[in-house]
Amino acid sequence: MNLPKQVQIKEVGPRDGLQNEKQLIHTEDKINWINQLSESGLSYIEITSFVHPKWIPQLKDAVEVAKSIKRKEGVTYGALVPNMKGLERALEADVDEVSIFMSASESHNQNNINKSISDTYPVLREVVDEAKQAGKSVRGYVSTVFGCPYDGAVDENQVIDVCHNLFDMGIDELSLGDTIGVANPVQVNQVLTKMEAHFSKEQLALHFHDTRGMALANTLIALQLGYHTFDSSLGGLGGCPYAKGASGNVATDDLVHMLQEMGIEQSIDLNKLLEAGHFIESSLGQPLPSKQMGISRKA
Amino acid sequence: MNLPKQVQIKEVGPRDGLQNEKQLIHTEDKINWINQLSESGLSYIEITSFVHPKWIPQLKDAVEVAKSIKRKEGVTYGALVPNMKGLERALEADVDEVSIFMSASESHNQNNINKSISDTYPVLREVVDEAKQAGKSVRGYVSTVFGCPYDGAVDENQVIDVCHNLFDMGIDELSLGDTIGVANPVQVNQVLTKMEAHFSKEQLALHFHDTRGMALANTLIALQLGYHTFDSSLGGLGGCPYAKGASGNVATDDLVHMLQEMGIEQSIDLNKLLEAGHFIESSLGQPLPSKQMGISRKA
Repeated sequence: MNLPKQVQIKEVGPRDGLQNEKQLIHTEDKINWINQLSESGLSYIEITSFVHPKWIPQLKDAVEVAKSIKRKEGVTYGALVPNMKGLERALEADVDEVSIFMSASESHNQNNINKSISDTYPVLREVVDEAKQAGKSVRGYVSTVFGCPYDGAVDENQVIDVCHNLFDMGIDELSLGDTIGVANPVQVNQVLTKMEAHFSKEQLALHFHDTRGMALANTLIALQLGYHTFDSSLGGLGGCPYAKGASGNVATDDLVHMLQEMGIEQSIDLNKLLEAGHFIESSLGQPLPSKQMGISRKA
Repeated sequence: MNLPKQVQIKEVGPRDGLQNEKQLIHTEDKINWINQLSESGLSYIEITSFVHPKWIPQLKDAVEVAKSIKRKEGVTYGALVPNMKGLERALEADVDEVSIFMSASESHNQNNINKSISDTYPVLREVVDEAKQAGKSVRGYVSTVFGCPYDGAVDENQVIDVCHNLFDMGIDELSLGDTIGVANPVQVNQVLTKMEAHFSKEQLALHFHDTRGMALANTLIALQLGYHTFDSSLGGLGGCPYAKGASGNVATDDLVHMLQEMGIEQSIDLNKLLEAGHFIESSLGQPLPSKQMGISRKA
């Protein structure tokens, strides 16, 4: 098997996880949790989103969280920004990296950010320009790469076109999102192989959701193709907004465990990660759905 | 990607699933359930085990179940037998195929069937001879192929040796069990590649457990190597006897769904399968853990 020696995991639980949980978590608990995540060996944590609190009240304390966490050397602290207003707050809070986002499918883009795909580009371009001028690196998210809850199948050429437009703005990395967890290994193989002609693997990350249980199989295919950056959420925090009760992001702990077993290097201490998982579990008042969290609770 | 065109799924829920559930299911419900499974397009159902009821009270009604189900043409109805006494009951109940079982690791074999590996062979040989004389096909299970709850790592040569001994008895197929769900894709690739020099893929099946979430990734590797027979349990029924609350067999419905999405043929109607899942869920009085069952409950 041809596999990368080393993988980087980007923890998105404090943003993608918490924004999909109904409960409001105390700001103090978020700060504590992110500090624990920093100590687990993670090199990248997406700590919050500077989306207007009207849309995501769960993350209305974004500035306070970003300003209050203990920044650990060697860890990049990123945050989502939807527009210039969000960027302003993100710069005020001095995050290391900002993430912009849009969808590969017209209907999801319209539903999620209330604009057509073509009307989204100038908004994002302005954010990227300004962020770059402020010395920040910029990450892009493309949602619904492998399927859309409204449009169904998404044309690979449309995905590639959106990615080109984002890279042309000067972003540093792009994360390909299986937003509703419909990707299957054959499709992942097909899409990623097609993308090889256009983009460097160094600049792409995979963002799988485990809604239908295929996230680790999809990860495996991406690894076999040489991709080595993956987004995940500790414990599978967050669920799926499109299928009530179904899984959202692939669980960081299950991903770390699989990589360890496969002999692939990554920077994370699984025990410390699970401790951080138990902390956020008690804040939430409910168990996280990942296998490793389940096993560690029973142990 | 090099994948088999067609896959056969062997449903082990009525045996491997139910024997690991605490609740006793009414015999009538089991019969009803198996009849529903027969109508879902499955070509193989392991309906029970003729182990002494002292060990597995959940399946004490084995003869009644086997005699009362409606046998559908084209479906093979198998059952587990541990010894000659079990075989006698299985033949009385006229199952189509009997399955013998042992472990690849000494301690698990000792704990599970109270004999050393070498003392197990003559017992199984007698069963195989007698079953063959009665015109039955025989399946073998090897447990703890990828790891043992007592011994830890299991030597691949020991696995191959056990498999040779079973095939030498004249068994028709052998199922390689990841009994405690510890196999990882790199290991599966290594073990199965090594086995290719010894055995035909036509005679091997994979029996993965999803305890650590890697069952579908492991299945994917086996598919890439050309293996095309997989055991699974509807809804993930059964859990794992070694990790309370953790998953047992990979879920038939999640496996069927992945294969469908990958464009690999198999014989099962997912909707009918999920209906059968809802039936056994209400008999159990608790939800089954698979993703597809979860999604279909919320739909």
